[in-house]
Amino acid sequence: MEDLAQEILQGKARAIARAISLAENDSQSAQEIIKKIFPYSGQSTVIGITGAPGSGKSTLVDGLIPLLRKKDNKVGVVAVDPSSPFSGGAILGDRIRMMRHSTDPQVFIRSMATRGQLGGLAKATGDAITILEAGGKDSILIETVGVGQDEVEIVKLADIIVVVLFPGTGDDIQIFKAGIMEIADVFVINKADSPDVDRIERQLKAVLELGYKEQKATPVVKTVATEDIGLEQLMSGINNVISAQKPGQRQARRKKLISSMLRDILTERIYSLIAHDVDQSLWEEWVEKVYKRQIDPYSVAEMILSRIKREPGQ
Amino acid sequence: MEDLAQEILQGKARAIARAISLAENDSQSAQEIIKKIFPYSGQSTVIGITGAPGSGKSTLVDGLIPLLRKKDNKVGVVAVDPSSPFSGGAILGDRIRMMRHSTDPQVFIRSMATRGQLGGLAKATGDAITILEAGGKDSILIETVGVGQDEVEIVKLADIIVVVLFPGTGDDIQIFKAGIMEIADVFVINKADSPDVDRIERQLKAVLELGYKEQKATPVVKTVATEDIGLEQLMSGINNVISAQKPGQRQARRKKLISSMLRDILTERIYSLIAHDVDQSLWEEWVEKVYKRQIDPYSVAEMILSRIKREPGQ
Repeated sequence: MEDLAQEILQGKARAIARAISLAENDSQSAQEIIKKIFPYSGQSTVIGITGAPGSGKSTLVDGLIPLLRKKDNKVGVVAVDPSSPFSGGAILGDRIRMMRHSTDPQVFIRSMATRGQLGGLAKATGDAITILEAGGKDSILIETVGVGQDEVEIVKLADIIVVVLFPGTGDDIQIFKAGIMEIADVFVINKADSPDVDRIERQLKAVLELGYKEQKATPVVKTVATEDIGLEQLMSGINNVISAQKPGQRQARRKKLISSMLRDILTERIYSLIAHDVDQSLWEEWVEKVYKRQIDPYSVAEMILSRIKREPGQ
Repeated sequence: MEDLAQEILQGKARAIARAISLAENDSQSAQEIIKKIFPYSGQSTVIGITGAPGSGKSTLVDGLIPLLRKKDNKVGVVAVDPSSPFSGGAILGDRIRMMRHSTDPQVFIRSMATRGQLGGLAKATGDAITILEAGGKDSILIETVGVGQDEVEIVKLADIIVVVLFPGTGDDIQIFKAGIMEIADVFVINKADSPDVDRIERQLKAVLELGYKEQKATPVVKTVATEDIGLEQLMSGINNVISAQKPGQRQARRKKLISSMLRDILTERIYSLIAHDVDQSLWEEWVEKVYKRQIDPYSVAEMILSRIKREPGQ
């Protein structure tokens, strides 16, 4: 583990990949590594990119990589898909497209899919960020595959959040539902060569006007990611927002993140203590008994808690 | 406590009020009471009413009470406001209006405001429902004062959920944001004497068509609660939905609720164990240290957890 931590700090891709896998599996050794490399983390710029499926986020990320590399930034990419147990199908296709960067040792690309429950993926993504930061990446792109509460938790790990919309679907309402509008630092309207682009721009402005007034000044960038159109503008949009951020602002954001990360770790640990003793069928049995009023929920909770308070293994 | 439990089962208002206060303060004795009365709970119909501030929910609730009383239903009302530490101001005004029912011993009305954190209020509301059920109320109305994630958790405690919209504000987007659309069993457009009523009805239908297709068949009732207009229709709308619910549906809903109630109790217990040892300023100190990379979050979590595992008082 000492060796692995050293290799991460040297920026070795295989060490970074292995550590992220360990974090994904929530292994004890992942925590040992994080503890060792943690002092060297916290210096990167983390860019979160979210939007409904089909918005072209992966193509955008793919197009931003060369722009970051041009400025000699080392780049880490983590694509997170909480909704599917495997990063297969269409998503795999996207990842394959990105493989054109795979010969560049300064670009690290990684998919992460669902794992466990209860904020586990957000925690694993947070660990991946720590690992990439310690591994010397200057810019870290976090891409979420879908739009939902889990994705919001994940994209909130970023210093700056890019929300991608696109014309021609009714699914943008998903974005309102998930509470994504209010966390956007930059809006992108991708697929802006569609004839429907004006309509969605009007809709976006109407929605901002109506319900998200504090977001009215948020920059809106139009792109056609597949044609490399608008990506430079998006990059400067992102950079402008970053340089406009007050130092205290970013600090407050990161501290809030640490606070929720601590809570996530605690919650996950405690639930894994519960899960250790309580399997799903036993849980359902208890629910059934409570439903039938054969036992009350407080007595069930006390039974479970009394187990937790024993040290594991005793 | 034995006496108090007995008096609740006899439906005595003062005993019910006292038990709810104990639950609100999360006292140990509240749990003892719940344990005793729990076998006698679970038989009422719980109606949840939510909507943006100003939608007239309280007036609606106030108007539904006599309709329920006409059918000789015993009625409990709990108005929950997670956003304010006190149920003061406008809300107090609403409560005072409801006091016209205060001479009826079969109507019990109670406000609950924010308390603690982390689902504490949802848990306390769940306890209040148990107490009112054991106290023999046939119908329990749960009214949330605002619209947000906490309110959604609370209104989900109900067997049937009524979502109140009203014309003339842009704030309805709050309802989409909070994930309330998808849990509605009945929509009410209150203040339907406003000239704007057709617009909001069109908007609601457009939104259902666009993003919530599975909600398309949800009944929409127009009311003017202040004039007692449409309340009978609302009552039959509610009753129709209830009688259309398959037995398994309601059972599944209640079991899901029990499961999440168990989780809430566990989470709250565990967090109170944490809070017992960790005060806010100590927490912030840790966040600061993690931010400065003086310690890593896993080590902090381990410190906190090692404290939990000691039995309290040892």
